[in-house]
Amino acid sequence: MPKISQKGFEMPSSPIRKLVPFAEKAIRMGRKVYPLNIGQPDIKTPKIALEAIRNIDIKILEYSHSAGIESYRIKLAKYYQKHHIQVNSSEIIVTTGGSEALLFAIGSIADPGDEIIIPEPFYANYNAFAIASGAKVVPVISRIEENFALPPIADFEKLITPQTRAILICNPSNPTGYLYAKQELKILAEICIKHDLFLIVDEVYREFVYDGCVHHSILSLGNIDQHAIVVDSVSKRYSMCGARIGCLISKNKEFMATALKFAQARLSPPTLAQIASEAALDTPDSYFEEVNKEYTLRRNTLIEGLQKIDGVKVAVPNGAFYCIAELPIDNADAFAQWLLEDFQLDGETVMVAPAAGFYATPNTGLNQIRIAYVLKIEDLKRSVDILKIAIPAYQEYLSKK
Amino acid sequence: MPKISQKGFEMPSSPIRKLVPFAEKAIRMGRKVYPLNIGQPDIKTPKIALEAIRNIDIKILEYSHSAGIESYRIKLAKYYQKHHIQVNSSEIIVTTGGSEALLFAIGSIADPGDEIIIPEPFYANYNAFAIASGAKVVPVISRIEENFALPPIADFEKLITPQTRAILICNPSNPTGYLYAKQELKILAEICIKHDLFLIVDEVYREFVYDGCVHHSILSLGNIDQHAIVVDSVSKRYSMCGARIGCLISKNKEFMATALKFAQARLSPPTLAQIASEAALDTPDSYFEEVNKEYTLRRNTLIEGLQKIDGVKVAVPNGAFYCIAELPIDNADAFAQWLLEDFQLDGETVMVAPAAGFYATPNTGLNQIRIAYVLKIEDLKRSVDILKIAIPAYQEYLSKK
Repeated sequence: MPKISQKGFEMPSSPIRKLVPFAEKAIRMGRKVYPLNIGQPDIKTPKIALEAIRNIDIKILEYSHSAGIESYRIKLAKYYQKHHIQVNSSEIIVTTGGSEALLFAIGSIADPGDEIIIPEPFYANYNAFAIASGAKVVPVISRIEENFALPPIADFEKLITPQTRAILICNPSNPTGYLYAKQELKILAEICIKHDLFLIVDEVYREFVYDGCVHHSILSLGNIDQHAIVVDSVSKRYSMCGARIGCLISKNKEFMATALKFAQARLSPPTLAQIASEAALDTPDSYFEEVNKEYTLRRNTLIEGLQKIDGVKVAVPNGAFYCIAELPIDNADAFAQWLLEDFQLDGETVMVAPAAGFYATPNTGLNQIRIAYVLKIEDLKRSVDILKIAIPAYQEYLSKK
Repeated sequence: MPKISQKGFEMPSSPIRKLVPFAEKAIRMGRKVYPLNIGQPDIKTPKIALEAIRNIDIKILEYSHSAGIESYRIKLAKYYQKHHIQVNSSEIIVTTGGSEALLFAIGSIADPGDEIIIPEPFYANYNAFAIASGAKVVPVISRIEENFALPPIADFEKLITPQTRAILICNPSNPTGYLYAKQELKILAEICIKHDLFLIVDEVYREFVYDGCVHHSILSLGNIDQHAIVVDSVSKRYSMCGARIGCLISKNKEFMATALKFAQARLSPPTLAQIASEAALDTPDSYFEEVNKEYTLRRNTLIEGLQKIDGVKVAVPNGAFYCIAELPIDNADAFAQWLLEDFQLDGETVMVAPAAGFYATPNTGLNQIRIAYVLKIEDLKRSVDILKIAIPAYQEYLSKK
């Protein structure tokens, strides 16, 4: 039999999807499962985007420019300018989701053996994209006790080697919900300039910040322009996860010319979804105000509910729509599976993502889970109720085993 | 300044796009340019596919399954069964174009330093996907004198090393138009079984075969099931290049489980385009009959025209919609640029793809060009007329320089 690659073996199974077969089985058995595991919002896609698709007037579904449809890039640049990011259309490459933007970014800067430092817990697929490129993720731990704030700069410097090519953060963060302060970004910028590293910032949750907080794009800082690479996506902003449209933004011309070669190799991003994404740029501000009001309520419902459960510790998120909760349980992985296989509260249960999959350091975050608050208030309330009963029930189950 | 990766430097610029800036300049100067460089067909997308998009009835544009929408995969399996490829939906992973299928295939089987043998000239992006994965393309030359048929098996065996992981072919071939005979596929299958290699076959031009020839899928041979990986795409079949929907097909479960991890990392292929692609499967046979009649005429027009030009040698293609022509000119790259910068016939010129970019061996194919016959008959006739005047004009221009 021909051999699978080593990188194929190393490629992680998705921590948000590994329990899906158990959930499917539970559903087949007539159980209701609240999906708290995946960031697929239930928020409606802006009508204006779907209308653009319904009104499509083409005879041939052609390739677009490899960097994306020009009119879309021009309009995108205006969107960024509105968000205090001074870029023009030539500093944007439209990608197939934020995923492809990450793949192009890592491929353009890292060779086999090169290292990228990422505060953990982090979006698990960063590791997958690094492995696909032959690069290596070097984690620096951030702590639930500190709300997952930026780790001390000394912790980063200890990890920098001649192989280090970049620091990568997600702001606001999936999976922690942490929103980086401007001062933290400045510190990161300084260390990247000092050590000649790229600073890749995944800003796909830019719009989702709460309690009057302000999101600062790394590209609004100014002095780090040659080092900064921003990854973005329409998936969460417009609840258009299935569009698979994102982009890569940088003012570093050499980097962009290289990323464009990766983009040309795959010919173009999806045309239909670009048309929808261009139309989505006209979404009125009221849409985001409503969505943020809803997410603020959801976050409050979830966090307040979790805080009332004995032994649960939770970091309060200021952005995105995830939180990490520490449970009074040693193995959240086994617990999450048990929730689907052996537990029900009046025929209902929840699917959560075990957080260990978001850490690169082995045996870390074993007692943590990630919860996405993408369900409506009553479902979140019910989910918290389920967890409140399930946690002591699981402890009892273990004690009897 | 932070550094670009070595692979970023090695990533080839697209041979079909490198002349685009010159063409754009020519067009700005009021010249008409016939684009013979790129395989973007002018054939209309089946109405049934575009109608499915116009009738889309969703409120949220959601992620699909990472392997693709299930109903689409089930229907796809039926399409393959109709083409004598006995696969089921679990042996298919829907990808973002054939491009992503290639990237997943190479990533799943090759580590940095591993080698993939490909008959040259080949689709230039195979090299790009190999570089992105850290793998290396090892070319085995096929010759215009032999119509670019399969090179002798001894030529392959000479190149097999402990690092060899796969042989990759395109059938029918872009850029040569060569359709592999069943016997050639059997020979390739044998060598792959003997040396425990994967055989990756890009079959995206399956429907485009002429003169009553029959396309044989590698998956219809039977004995090579554990070694065979098929790459497919809707781009050419339904003139839906902009959909960016392809797929990966294999009966090797370990390979498919690995490829699925790559697929999960990027979450899902584009949802809208999958809906269009599923609808496209109901395209009536008459569509393909008409399209093939048209391409046969175009091929005949182009090839007969080229054969009448003094000093031009051309391989007669039995499939796809490309041909490689050898010109009585030393440097086709310079000629192609000159066509756009310095030549016109009544205000018109052509853009061709220099073929050297389709060879991995340095200084090979320098006097060859690739022509895509994706334009209507009258435009192809005119293009041949332009080349007929341009070639001696360029020879004269060179002799005076």
